[in-house]
Amino acid sequence: MPDFSIGVDLGGTNLRIAAVSDEGQLLEKITLGTNLALGRNHVIDEMCDAMQRLSGKYKETGDFLGAGIGFPGLIDIATGRLRKAVNLPGFEGYAVREEIERRMKFPKNDARVVIENDGRVAALGEQWRGAARNFSNAAMLTLGTGIGGGIVLGGKIWHGMNGMAGEFGHVTLEPEGRPCGCGNRGCAEQYASASAIVRMAQEAIARGEAPTLARAAAPANELGAEALYKLAIQGDEQAGRIFRNFGRYLGLLLASLVNILNLEMFVIGGGVSSAWDAYAPSMFEELRERSVVYAATAPPDFSGSDAFGKKEEGAVAQAKNRNERKTIITRALLGSDAGLYGAARVAVLAR
Amino acid sequence: MPDFSIGVDLGGTNLRIAAVSDEGQLLEKITLGTNLALGRNHVIDEMCDAMQRLSGKYKETGDFLGAGIGFPGLIDIATGRLRKAVNLPGFEGYAVREEIERRMKFPKNDARVVIENDGRVAALGEQWRGAARNFSNAAMLTLGTGIGGGIVLGGKIWHGMNGMAGEFGHVTLEPEGRPCGCGNRGCAEQYASASAIVRMAQEAIARGEAPTLARAAAPANELGAEALYKLAIQGDEQAGRIFRNFGRYLGLLLASLVNILNLEMFVIGGGVSSAWDAYAPSMFEELRERSVVYAATAPPDFSGSDAFGKKEEGAVAQAKNRNERKTIITRALLGSDAGLYGAARVAVLAR
Repeated sequence: MPDFSIGVDLGGTNLRIAAVSDEGQLLEKITLGTNLALGRNHVIDEMCDAMQRLSGKYKETGDFLGAGIGFPGLIDIATGRLRKAVNLPGFEGYAVREEIERRMKFPKNDARVVIENDGRVAALGEQWRGAARNFSNAAMLTLGTGIGGGIVLGGKIWHGMNGMAGEFGHVTLEPEGRPCGCGNRGCAEQYASASAIVRMAQEAIARGEAPTLARAAAPANELGAEALYKLAIQGDEQAGRIFRNFGRYLGLLLASLVNILNLEMFVIGGGVSSAWDAYAPSMFEELRERSVVYAATAPPDFSGSDAFGKKEEGAVAQAKNRNERKTIITRALLGSDAGLYGAARVAVLAR
Repeated sequence: MPDFSIGVDLGGTNLRIAAVSDEGQLLEKITLGTNLALGRNHVIDEMCDAMQRLSGKYKETGDFLGAGIGFPGLIDIATGRLRKAVNLPGFEGYAVREEIERRMKFPKNDARVVIENDGRVAALGEQWRGAARNFSNAAMLTLGTGIGGGIVLGGKIWHGMNGMAGEFGHVTLEPEGRPCGCGNRGCAEQYASASAIVRMAQEAIARGEAPTLARAAAPANELGAEALYKLAIQGDEQAGRIFRNFGRYLGLLLASLVNILNLEMFVIGGGVSSAWDAYAPSMFEELRERSVVYAATAPPDFSGSDAFGKKEEGAVAQAKNRNERKTIITRALLGSDAGLYGAARVAVLAR
């Protein structure tokens, strides 16, 4: 049996813990609710119990290589503290790595605890085992409540100097745009996240411009991104417009990232990324218009809505074979497991 | 005597060639005009003559390690061709590396010719011998007709996959903004370059909003960025407003770069960068407001206009000593020689 590490994804809603072999096989996954109402100690206790259970079980057949934990927020890697964590009340300033190490009672200089931002570990997961597995350099955007992000260079997370590189969600897209929780205005996550899609629908309903959406939202007055996507692919004009608008903003963000980083692959993840055929055409159109680097490196036969599946595999093969490397923008493959793979990987890379 | 390499900076106006020791001492510099009217062969001949002269002279006292040449434009590093070079008519598609190697008749596998984008070599120059010499990771923006850029990671140019990483000038700042030569609208170089300053002044004059600038521009109807800077520091309100506006856009661009890259140091170069005290306060204000990463990592006692000189040195020392690393934004130190140092360095690194 192989050696293994543990990856944890601590979100505002779910707490997921997995044992992953060092060859990248997910051995076992435990999914719990994140019971924030009971306090951070309770959450950390539950996490550590599950980690103990998994490490105890698989330790009998392989070496335990360490644990990586992805948190939503700005993390100070040097001190192991959470600097900013709007979705984890009570965690700001918390010396979370120290607390976990204390509970886990790892022998010194053996298995270690590594804490990371959730966007960074998802990027590493997709690069290690997902959409970017054939590339050593890639970036990923996870579109959810906000926008998570991460840059992987040479198969490792590119941290920048304090572990904060990859804050794509707070890149300004509209200088005079919507206020963001970070203090800025017009941040990408106000326009190209899952919550932005829902908000755009609510605004269209409130303006009386979207009667079909208003009907779909009634009586509970709720309309999620998934329901909107279904309406869009059924041909609802308003829903379609919202996804096209979302695609344009996503393209605008990607255009900047491509111009700055010139990476081989950009992976789009998060639940809303699966609405690809509703937003990809306008995303690619915006990218071609706005990024001089993308225009020079776009795969020749990519045309937006069909830029996945067979053609995507073809472009990847072509990029590798002809040594004419192209910028591939594609969907994530691992879904919500990306963060578990990445967190497990980060523990091994830290050894 | 030390070993040496040759660095070349081929601009639309000047052609400069320097011999630089591998320890980073500029041994000799030749400055010529770039006589584009006589055709690209003439320009390349003049460049190669000067390179032969310098290599012949210093070869007697040290080994010649190669030549690096910085070009304004998008370069395909793999093929040694210029893909896009708006300021060098006739050079697009030109197999420039091959041509230079043919003329220089280097012995095989010995000294080599490396071609690079001018923004990238300037960044490497400032990282090797200039403002960022104490850091191995840094980015530089050169503000001129356009905006040159480069990212240095681990003491080497970060190329991305095709050598195009660092196209900061074409990051979109205003989605519905001014058209740019690259095909996009609202590119950074339309707002935060030296030419943008001059254009903003011309527009203010044309709108009749800047009588003092109109007087200063008459009778030749010319007003350069330097003259505008002098007016600004003499208290001219319109000139001051133009630099503040420029600083805001530069801050907006830097905010995105800091959020994405989280580097230790960002160096601002190009002639207009010396107008620092006219634009730095609004640049820092914008950065603090717009970048969650900058806000978390800004040097505590930086306050814009006095963020240079003694305080800057202090912040660098502090950053190194306390292991609490801060984001330093500072002016370039090497002026137009940055590209020569960087081009010479790139030849040595390529060996």
